[in-house]
Amino acid sequence: MLDRLKADVLKANLALVRQGLVLVTWGNASGIDRDSGHVVIKPSGVAYEVMTPEDMAVVDLDGKLVAGKLKPSVDTPTHLALYRAFPEIGGVVHTHSHYATCWAQACRPIPCFGTTHADHFNGEIPVTDAMTAEEVGEDYEAHIGDAIVRAFRDRDPMHCPGVLVANHAPFVWGKDVATAVESAYVLEEVARMALHTLALSPGQRPIAAYLLDKHFMRKHGAGAYYGQGSE
Amino acid sequence: MLDRLKADVLKANLALVRQGLVLVTWGNASGIDRDSGHVVIKPSGVAYEVMTPEDMAVVDLDGKLVAGKLKPSVDTPTHLALYRAFPEIGGVVHTHSHYATCWAQACRPIPCFGTTHADHFNGEIPVTDAMTAEEVGEDYEAHIGDAIVRAFRDRDPMHCPGVLVANHAPFVWGKDVATAVESAYVLEEVARMALHTLALSPGQRPIAAYLLDKHFMRKHGAGAYYGQGSE
Amino acid sequence: MLDRLKADVLKANLALVRQGLVLVTWGNASGIDRDSGHVVIKPSGVAYEVMTPEDMAVVDLDGKLVAGKLKPSVDTPTHLALYRAFPEIGGVVHTHSHYATCWAQACRPIPCFGTTHADHFNGEIPVTDAMTAEEVGEDYEAHIGDAIVRAFRDRDPMHCPGVLVANHAPFVWGKDVATAVESAYVLEEVARMALHTLALSPGQRPIAAYLLDKHFMRKHGAGAYYGQGSE
Amino acid sequence: MLDRLKADVLKANLALVRQGLVLVTWGNASGIDRDSGHVVIKPSGVAYEVMTPEDMAVVDLDGKLVAGKLKPSVDTPTHLALYRAFPEIGGVVHTHSHYATCWAQACRPIPCFGTTHADHFNGEIPVTDAMTAEEVGEDYEAHIGDAIVRAFRDRDPMHCPGVLVANHAPFVWGKDVATAVESAYVLEEVARMALHTLALSPGQRPIAAYLLDKHFMRKHGAGAYYGQGSE
Repeated sequence: MLDRLKADVLKANLALVRQGLVLVTWGNASGIDRDSGHVVIKPSGVAYEVMTPEDMAVVDLDGKLVAGKLKPSVDTPTHLALYRAFPEIGGVVHTHSHYATCWAQACRPIPCFGTTHADHFNGEIPVTDAMTAEEVGEDYEAHIGDAIVRAFRDRDPMHCPGVLVANHAPFVWGKDVATAVESAYVLEEVARMALHTLALSPGQRPIAAYLLDKHFMRKHGAGAYYGQGSE
Repeated sequence: MLDRLKADVLKANLALVRQGLVLVTWGNASGIDRDSGHVVIKPSGVAYEVMTPEDMAVVDLDGKLVAGKLKPSVDTPTHLALYRAFPEIGGVVHTHSHYATCWAQACRPIPCFGTTHADHFNGEIPVTDAMTAEEVGEDYEAHIGDAIVRAFRDRDPMHCPGVLVANHAPFVWGKDVATAVESAYVLEEVARMALHTLALSPGQRPIAAYLLDKHFMRKHGAGAYYGQGSE
Repeated sequence: MLDRLKADVLKANLALVRQGLVLVTWGNASGIDRDSGHVVIKPSGVAYEVMTPEDMAVVDLDGKLVAGKLKPSVDTPTHLALYRAFPEIGGVVHTHSHYATCWAQACRPIPCFGTTHADHFNGEIPVTDAMTAEEVGEDYEAHIGDAIVRAFRDRDPMHCPGVLVANHAPFVWGKDVATAVESAYVLEEVARMALHTLALSPGQRPIAAYLLDKHFMRKHGAGAYYGQGSE
Repeated sequence: MLDRLKADVLKANLALVRQGLVLVTWGNASGIDRDSGHVVIKPSGVAYEVMTPEDMAVVDLDGKLVAGKLKPSVDTPTHLALYRAFPEIGGVVHTHSHYATCWAQACRPIPCFGTTHADHFNGEIPVTDAMTAEEVGEDYEAHIGDAIVRAFRDRDPMHCPGVLVANHAPFVWGKDVATAVESAYVLEEVARMALHTLALSPGQRPIAAYLLDKHFMRKHGAGAYYGQGSE
């Protein structure tokens, strides 16, 4: 089971690079085995070209190293906070993908301006509060996780599988690590579309709630009729 | 005849991906055999890499499945509305190509700012009215088709082979499915040029009618003198 | 001699496509043999993938077809006007490259905002007057050439090897067709830089005349000291 | 030692082209052997495709040619000024990379808008004063070096490994030439992010000092905990 997860997590990390969502080493993907509570995550600062499944770090939900010889990503405490708070999720991805990061740097949530967004995110993509000096001073990466969880107090993380960390960059998730990679890809395109939509229409309003719900539910709801029915 | 059309429709769907006009599975192409009234269209939610001509769905103009084992694209009712309303067209393409979608999200028609646009679209590219809650609530995809047809009440669909669906994305067409793909490509570049033209000149006016007509007719009119005369 | 020129002109046309300066068939390159007064130019509306040197059209400076079985580009009269007016030039290129075309559509000359521009264009890149209904109505393509020549009444075409045709797109040139292709490439990047410079600094002024002259002359003047001295 | 450095400098010059940071011949990389005081730098105006390690020019810190048959880059005096002023640096890179050049053309320093920037540059990336007519008139390239050094009077060049030369383009550096190439890459992405961040939030303020320091020191300070500890 863990071998399969290690292979999936490695594959996800490489997909992020190939899709242009991760430049240099700015990003990481993880997956969780809910039965054992073990989280497989990219090691810190290792080159993508030489990474093997065995290089993946394995930690428990408290961050204790369970397997692997390499230090897990510095962002591990953020991933763990999400796994603890959102029991439905199976994979987490962090990138500095260009346009999503620009929205995070602007500290603005991404409004839902169209059906491309609505097909995947059921409403605006929120931005966390800025981190305080105290939060940055100690357990910084865990506090990022807390800030994300606070931003989802009144949201369903499965209806909005992503967030912008203020002044930083996005975190996204999904039912497994491959789905989290897809969320990262869609978020980046949606972020780029929203920026250019505002360039054409600076006061643009979000789409109507009935159109938003229609599109999200057409793909994700109980009455979904998109695809071949086996999805 | 239908075998040839299936191959052409598959090829068109793959071309959209290769040209960057379709990301993930956000798009579809169809073609019609006017003699039989059969429409060949991409199946819903199937990966492009594994699609074969036999996977294409075949429906009649009322949407009844005629051949194929897979469900046709959820956008099929929109395609059919266009085939019924515009008898000259032989192919329809729907994409969420980046810049055209941004104009659709901004709910703005694309003005004709230059000859690149005028060579292919004889005037502004219109945007539909926003869909009402009633239209979205039932037969949504058919109502999108109706909204497009309404936008062409006073336009010749062969002179302006494309439209922006408000808050959504473009539909384009042509005399056959390959021409519809070309319309999708030109629309995307024209949409991108128009956005950057406005960035340089926010109050830019459309080009003069005599220049618009000259360029469109140089390529498409009875006295066309572009190309080798065999086109 | 003409065989060599045909090969060079074909190569230039293909380079424009490869460098992303020409999409679809939106562009053409030509070269002149000054001894015979013969101009070799891309045929009209032929696919780049199948073009051979023998497909190139050959015309004299009055536009009479001298050799070749295919109709020359519809833009031939514009090319000829430039060869007649600017005796130092040996090659002409027309593209609808994205950013240069946006400046043309905005009907704005491109100011010299930095040394990248100054290294190749000794000052702002001018835009022609808009074409009148009379100019468009008859001999349209020749009148485009006249408009370009008027824009260079007080300019040296070898110091500014390019122009924007208002509402249309750029024409560029050089001592030969390969140099004209390089001008097209540099123009596109300079146009893109100028747009983004204005986004950061809307009231940005052109660089000082002494910096402009220094850079242009460092590469092109009598005392040029760039390169290995054999250029 | 010099052979190794020549190979590294060639590799760095080629990497700049491959990463899209250098178009045409607009850029150069150099490295220094601090023991001998010899600087290896790209020759002037030579095509990248044919360059060999032996083509690299070798000069001393006063600019005297020590080895190589080709003239060193015209920008050599700028590189030398940096090596003389900043004893910790081992490599220098000059590019006209698109977005960094746009900031240089706009004569604006790049504010630190997020952690992507803070991970590599400990604060805003400064812009030099504009060059005066006197500075341009004689020893122009050496005066560019002086202007850069003046901009670092109160800065640590190892904490901010890059600068924008006003109206021109960036220079970057690092402990060796490969690190300087990485600085060039990060600068370009940071410059692009900052432009789009301002598009979304025109009055955006730089990030808090405590967040800036946290990120820079997490990777570069004495207590760095990023990577595997062997970095």
